[in-house]
Amino acid sequence: MANDKKLVEAITSMEEDFAQWYTDVVKKAELIDYSSVRGCMILRPAGYAIWEKIQQELDRRFKETGVENVYMPMFIPESLLQKEKDHVEGFAPEVAWVTQGGLETLQERLVVRPTSETLFCDLYSNIVQSYRDLPKLYNQWCSVVRWEKTTRPFLRTTEFLWQEGHTAHATAEEAEERTQQMLKVYADFCEEMLAIPVVKGRKTDKEKFAGAEATYTIETLMHDGKALQSGTSHNFGDGFAKAFDIKYTDKNNKLQYAHQTSWGMTTRIIGAIIMVHGDDSGLVLPPRIAPTQVMIVPIMQKKEGVLEKAFALKEQLSECFSVKVDDSDKNPGWKFSEQEMRGIPVRVEIGPKDIEANQCVVVRRDTREKQVVSLDELKEKLGEILETMQKDMFERAKTHRDQHTYVAKDYEEFKTIAKEKPGFIKAMWCGDESCELKIKEDTTVTSRCMPFEQEKLSDTCVCCGKPAKTMAYWGKAY
Amino acid sequence: MANDKKLVEAITSMEEDFAQWYTDVVKKAELIDYSSVRGCMILRPAGYAIWEKIQQELDRRFKETGVENVYMPMFIPESLLQKEKDHVEGFAPEVAWVTQGGLETLQERLVVRPTSETLFCDLYSNIVQSYRDLPKLYNQWCSVVRWEKTTRPFLRTTEFLWQEGHTAHATAEEAEERTQQMLKVYADFCEEMLAIPVVKGRKTDKEKFAGAEATYTIETLMHDGKALQSGTSHNFGDGFAKAFDIKYTDKNNKLQYAHQTSWGMTTRIIGAIIMVHGDDSGLVLPPRIAPTQVMIVPIMQKKEGVLEKAFALKEQLSECFSVKVDDSDKNPGWKFSEQEMRGIPVRVEIGPKDIEANQCVVVRRDTREKQVVSLDELKEKLGEILETMQKDMFERAKTHRDQHTYVAKDYEEFKTIAKEKPGFIKAMWCGDESCELKIKEDTTVTSRCMPFEQEKLSDTCVCCGKPAKTMAYWGKAY
Repeated sequence: MANDKKLVEAITSMEEDFAQWYTDVVKKAELIDYSSVRGCMILRPAGYAIWEKIQQELDRRFKETGVENVYMPMFIPESLLQKEKDHVEGFAPEVAWVTQGGLETLQERLVVRPTSETLFCDLYSNIVQSYRDLPKLYNQWCSVVRWEKTTRPFLRTTEFLWQEGHTAHATAEEAEERTQQMLKVYADFCEEMLAIPVVKGRKTDKEKFAGAEATYTIETLMHDGKALQSGTSHNFGDGFAKAFDIKYTDKNNKLQYAHQTSWGMTTRIIGAIIMVHGDDSGLVLPPRIAPTQVMIVPIMQKKEGVLEKAFALKEQLSECFSVKVDDSDKNPGWKFSEQEMRGIPVRVEIGPKDIEANQCVVVRRDTREKQVVSLDELKEKLGEILETMQKDMFERAKTHRDQHTYVAKDYEEFKTIAKEKPGFIKAMWCGDESCELKIKEDTTVTSRCMPFEQEKLSDTCVCCGKPAKTMAYWGKAY
Repeated sequence: MANDKKLVEAITSMEEDFAQWYTDVVKKAELIDYSSVRGCMILRPAGYAIWEKIQQELDRRFKETGVENVYMPMFIPESLLQKEKDHVEGFAPEVAWVTQGGLETLQERLVVRPTSETLFCDLYSNIVQSYRDLPKLYNQWCSVVRWEKTTRPFLRTTEFLWQEGHTAHATAEEAEERTQQMLKVYADFCEEMLAIPVVKGRKTDKEKFAGAEATYTIETLMHDGKALQSGTSHNFGDGFAKAFDIKYTDKNNKLQYAHQTSWGMTTRIIGAIIMVHGDDSGLVLPPRIAPTQVMIVPIMQKKEGVLEKAFALKEQLSECFSVKVDDSDKNPGWKFSEQEMRGIPVRVEIGPKDIEANQCVVVRRDTREKQVVSLDELKEKLGEILETMQKDMFERAKTHRDQHTYVAKDYEEFKTIAKEKPGFIKAMWCGDESCELKIKEDTTVTSRCMPFEQEKLSDTCVCCGKPAKTMAYWGKAY
């Protein structure tokens, strides 16, 4: 038992230091490793497998709405990036520049893509001519680079993986519909697959994407009460179309500008999974997104028949679940700790006595609830346990979020909550950026979104006291 | 019919100009588009969907052998690239350099990865300590950059997509076994899925990978008689392990160097599919790799019930095949040409008279064979047709390759074949690089590989007349 003690001790507790707990978990669960490249991380098999599951499921949901995948170059010529004014101002300060190719110095510098709006626009301006060519519903899975000064695994890294969808439509209405449709895809995905409740809303002008008319967002709340922007969907109107000359002939033979959207979700969502569900023993993966759902740990595995039975069970259960056997030469206690650290939803223990009694011990990762289950009923029982666990995890996360969502009716109250109670603050706002700036300066809290589900908390802005235009969510954010 | 004539006329015939035919097909089948970035191409939905099918199938085959996916940074610090001497010499002249990040000039330049051996070695040197940590069987799907002077879609582009597997093993034997195992995965994949016959063999020292002890390759023959290196697998021995200090403690507590391999397949294999199977009407996709296997073309689709029937058929057939309905407002002739251009394996025509007779017309893309099929038997029949087509395509490609594989017993014969008969040349070789260089200079032909299946054609080298060590395949290559 000395071994598993050592492993557990190696994690800082959440209460003691949440940031250190987080770093410990991503390393100890072998999700990432640091690389020789400043700010870039290595996604190890356990981390990448979660991303693969996310990809598969999101990709399926995208394709159901008619989206097709493409691949665009990773480089953007400087002149192309500069075509849309707000966009280049937003991104130019934080990009990596390629200045030399082979032995020659480039005549025009290339940007390593921070996002690919400009490339998609360039393509659309070439391939969209008629209303028949619309809509274009393209997406790509790739990595992008933003030169960050301070980085944290998954949450903020120089290079990160994501998908970026880019669509072009005939009308403003269609573009708006698509922007909201994709936000809903993200929201449903988060809630159904990741067991993470979201707040859907619109970003303020200050917080919206560089070049967008409107940015919609899903905001989630981490265990420490900080918010995480977890997916965004942008409506560009015809701004990019005008900058890039994306025009089509409509049914009346008139030239019209296209209307565009883009939307993205990144590997930072893995950070959300960790920070919403994790505990002091490590990662806790929601069953629907866990690359391995069931880990069979043989007890006294050197005894005749134990490993055989473990692998036979695996074979049988693999029809319904993703199952592995931990047959390494470590002791069971160590294995338990290790599989808990990795967040495997369910552990099945089976030893000689269990085999004799035609049973096994099933342990849930989140509650640590133990049950003795007859092998005849194991498959059915596991299905129930995994489904229950998925639901319970969502409910727990929702309860935590609701318990950490506060209402501030005046500025004193707002400041006190901001100081003392980590979480979301709901408060009315006049819509002026000056109040956003003042709130940020006074409290380090920023506007998260103007939620689709509005409530009228009072008539006046929580900051300036002028008539309120909207309710907003506020919070400290990653 | 004017429309489809125009479409067909737009492709140069293979006989007239094979290179132009190829370029026409990749553009007209909408596989790629050119981008604003020199030498980088855009993979459009029809092209990327083929790559997705390749990925799915290769990934499945890799994972069956125990491989796990990871993601490594796209940048490599200059100092890291320089650690293995042969490797840096091979790649440094053809890489893209990042010299600026955000507003700062970098103290150390970064290479955009041309391949990731150095990063994997850096990781392995950190995470491999004991024999228990071995083997490491990692793979990543990503893009890489090589600064090419002349480029051609799929075959040679500045940026391209690929997978790169990197493994570390305890012993030299295990590394060799893995190197050959992965070559076999590539060979089986090509023959079974892409209907492309391969020659498996070993590269000469001159042609092997920069830093490898041995490079194995699968070589394929295009319709024009040129060869294409279609997948490679490298055994590094312990060379990289020594350069990067990858050591482990063995069971006897002794420090040992690890032995490594790497292996890769790229989007250039899509070029092979085009150039092996295509014809003067465009692309011909082998059914097993075709993103859309069956295209239903409604005839007189405005007549009541036709579109409904077409979509009902789609629904029914989708259980077994990937099926689409072309319900665009183009005329059927145009649709036929367009779907032929795109290489859809089977077309199903259905109109009012067919519906009345409970039948449809099925047309194979490769042979253009037409059959009237009862709707009751359609599903079964389509399965047979697609299977037959897959087999026939492989057999045709094999026959073509065999008919274009020549034996040269002396140098005069070699030179005549090289000049007059595009294809593979089998000839004996002494093993000296000087003969390879002379042959290349005299004929522009290079050694493709020393095949695993050796034949003794004569006792002496086809070039210098000294005793032969091996039979080799020679050819002009893409």
